[in-house]
Amino acid sequence: MKKFAVVLSGCGVYDGAEIHEATLTLLAIAQQGAMYEIFAPDMEQHHVINHLTGQEMPEKRNVLVESARIARGKIKPLSEFSPSGFDALIFPGGFGAAKNLSTVAFHGPDAKVNPDVEKAVKAMHAAGKPIGALCIAPALIAKILGNVEVTIGQDSGTAQAIEKMGGKHVKTTHGEVTVDKKNKIFTTPCYMLDATIVQIYEGARNVVNEIMLNV
Amino acid sequence: MKKFAVVLSGCGVYDGAEIHEATLTLLAIAQQGAMYEIFAPDMEQHHVINHLTGQEMPEKRNVLVESARIARGKIKPLSEFSPSGFDALIFPGGFGAAKNLSTVAFHGPDAKVNPDVEKAVKAMHAAGKPIGALCIAPALIAKILGNVEVTIGQDSGTAQAIEKMGGKHVKTTHGEVTVDKKNKIFTTPCYMLDATIVQIYEGARNVVNEIMLNV
Repeated sequence: MKKFAVVLSGCGVYDGAEIHEATLTLLAIAQQGAMYEIFAPDMEQHHVINHLTGQEMPEKRNVLVESARIARGKIKPLSEFSPSGFDALIFPGGFGAAKNLSTVAFHGPDAKVNPDVEKAVKAMHAAGKPIGALCIAPALIAKILGNVEVTIGQDSGTAQAIEKMGGKHVKTTHGEVTVDKKNKIFTTPCYMLDATIVQIYEGARNVVNEIMLNV
Repeated sequence: MKKFAVVLSGCGVYDGAEIHEATLTLLAIAQQGAMYEIFAPDMEQHHVINHLTGQEMPEKRNVLVESARIARGKIKPLSEFSPSGFDALIFPGGFGAAKNLSTVAFHGPDAKVNPDVEKAVKAMHAAGKPIGALCIAPALIAKILGNVEVTIGQDSGTAQAIEKMGGKHVKTTHGEVTVDKKNKIFTTPCYMLDATIVQIYEGARNVVNEIMLNV
């Protein structure tokens, strides 16, 4: 049975992992007859956004603790991730990938990356194992690995940032997966486009299915 | 185009709406070619649970604000719900249904119900429109309407509480839907059973499909 490591970045599109993308990635993995374990870095969120108003809240929340909401408590600190136990690594999107796992949302091509995230991505890449990323998370992969081919859909600012990181950006639309065969990187735009939840499901399924053909 | 009102109770299984059930209910509605609007009561959560440890946290969170994470900000206070605008009403599960929307988790058959929830359910029932509920949420419907037929799966304590509320409980397993044709109540157990995410999707799809046959 193939096993995915799923990395979350909180719980909620504006300050954490995008909930639909995360849930539908888990569903797509299970529907393929594969298993998953869920990880998140044990760190403070960059900030907390009130998802009703869009305003910052005077609170502190922890990325691992909030990610545990999506994982129903079955989650481990990303520092415990070991590539030998897994066939594939996948990152759902949401601003958490660009605010917590990295600072892509604030510093674009000059972003910093959480050390556990960087270590996990580099180790899987070095082991020749596939890495998937949805929404804004492909920018994180480009920041870590440099010369890889990814998609975040059609946003030209983010596409330019990816090119400055050394990556190659491919324009895509709903449900399309960009496959970098050489590096085994699989990416799809999801909510980086103005999408319906049916289109998010399509994207999550397509990217997981492509990965399953390459594990 | 048929329109569902989806009522959330927070964001996370132990103190709010169960995230997989909520997301997969939205997906199932959209896959049926129907529309949805999301509502939640504007009230303080009963408490905040650390989903990693299961312990209570010394924090306060608001049900509407946290539910907005699942809704990606597109949500209204339940006090603004009007039955005339909708063909069906549906409640995903999670402890939020039994701790925030009602006190079923603490007081069983003697539970109190949030007034906006009670008003919404009674108005849809009086209008002869279908009401769906997943997981523990069927107990809430039984508490409000009394003599209805529902399922929460196989948990005998909860089933007995439902009978004391005046309801009739039907034992079911994964994906099964109990249909009370006379009252147009549609229920399925989801995570009240030890279920996989694929089984949750099956339950959400089946209950939404049954409702679509009755709108």
